[in-house]
Amino acid sequence: MSIRNFRIILQYDGTKYQGWQKQVSTENTIQGKLETLLTKMCEEVVEVNGAGRTDAGVHAFGQVANFHIETDKTAEEIMQYMNQYLPQDISVISCKEAGERFHARLNATGKHYQYSIWNSPKKPVFNRNYTHQVPEQLDMDAITEAISYLVGTHDFQSFTSTKRGKKSTVRTIDAIDIERKGEELIFHFRGNGFLYHMVRILMGTLVEVGLGIRKAEDIPGVIEACDRSKAGHLIPAKGLTLVEVTYD
Amino acid sequence: MSIRNFRIILQYDGTKYQGWQKQVSTENTIQGKLETLLTKMCEEVVEVNGAGRTDAGVHAFGQVANFHIETDKTAEEIMQYMNQYLPQDISVISCKEAGERFHARLNATGKHYQYSIWNSPKKPVFNRNYTHQVPEQLDMDAITEAISYLVGTHDFQSFTSTKRGKKSTVRTIDAIDIERKGEELIFHFRGNGFLYHMVRILMGTLVEVGLGIRKAEDIPGVIEACDRSKAGHLIPAKGLTLVEVTYD
Repeated sequence: MSIRNFRIILQYDGTKYQGWQKQVSTENTIQGKLETLLTKMCEEVVEVNGAGRTDAGVHAFGQVANFHIETDKTAEEIMQYMNQYLPQDISVISCKEAGERFHARLNATGKHYQYSIWNSPKKPVFNRNYTHQVPEQLDMDAITEAISYLVGTHDFQSFTSTKRGKKSTVRTIDAIDIERKGEELIFHFRGNGFLYHMVRILMGTLVEVGLGIRKAEDIPGVIEACDRSKAGHLIPAKGLTLVEVTYD
Repeated sequence: MSIRNFRIILQYDGTKYQGWQKQVSTENTIQGKLETLLTKMCEEVVEVNGAGRTDAGVHAFGQVANFHIETDKTAEEIMQYMNQYLPQDISVISCKEAGERFHARLNATGKHYQYSIWNSPKKPVFNRNYTHQVPEQLDMDAITEAISYLVGTHDFQSFTSTKRGKKSTVRTIDAIDIERKGEELIFHFRGNGFLYHMVRILMGTLVEVGLGIRKAEDIPGVIEACDRSKAGHLIPAKGLTLVEVTYD
């Protein structure tokens, strides 16, 4: 048997998990579940790299991960094994052998997240775990103007919960598109990468603009400030979903 | 204050409830939740009549109910009060004053239920509580033929879990329509009323036809037999939703 590198695509409902990343204090993370399973399958310790370290309560339609294992199983057999033992709220939808140097996080060149706002006074009975309710009507013109200032390459230090360190906080947002679907407003964020809490703070800021709490024209100043306290609130995790990760 | 009759439309996610009907052994029913709430609001015992006595795990997009209460509140205020205190998985979407003799169950002239089949080997990660997975491909021609025998006015004794009694088991099914929605096959059942477990046994039988376990042409014989043991299995509750109740 030789060591092979597998690339999987995952869907999960993040509601009852403590996020992607494994923790010493709890087994209840997506990475933790996967590693426990693969370690059992391979009878040796397996490490899984995820493209996006989703927070507690955040979901995924297309998280990408990779792991190196020594096995004679086919990719299809590994996927079947994983789906058999994973809980109902985590699913492997694709498994392929990858080049030996492929790394799901380090090689990712683009990410697509969506944030769902339930923009209605009616209760979101059936998707209450996947959407954040804002009952008031939102000023979509103001939100569209605010978005125009955010798209592009900027230092997004104001929009992350991580304190300034050595790592660059410059990112490029390619687009923020809005989709209407019944009572839902789905905001699609596409870019080359997002900082810790960045989509949730961007979305919190956009909601404040939509409610008239802050002005769209103040957004450039918020970006320039490079100061977390100038941006909007951290909106709840449950509305956020990692839709897709792209590679060159 | 005079006694007034209110008619409400309800949505609920039935996953964690023991069905509609109140029980001595548990407070965890939809009717129980509503009666407890209204009894508190009115400071006297309130009884709520539901149009359909949905089973444990069955959902509703448009359950109808009525109750007589002595109040000065407007219908709008009652709805707001109820939504404020009901859990996130139950919502009142309409509340109107009705004629004194209106009874949600006795006056109902039609019902529309839907049953969702997740017809894919992929796991239904996000709607796992609202759909029943059948990974195998279904023979839709055979199902369509079977449906043609079921539509119409028949004695549906074979399709109910209730033993024959004095009450008529004759019902009229107006239509069974199939909607495709991604991996989902949604079966819409419309008729003047459905017996206990009837939609779930009809659906269990149709799935058996679709899998080739039984033949479509045998359905007329199953109806004629008036014998529960001749029909298919009782399919799980979670795929079933009461969509709408109609009145003349």
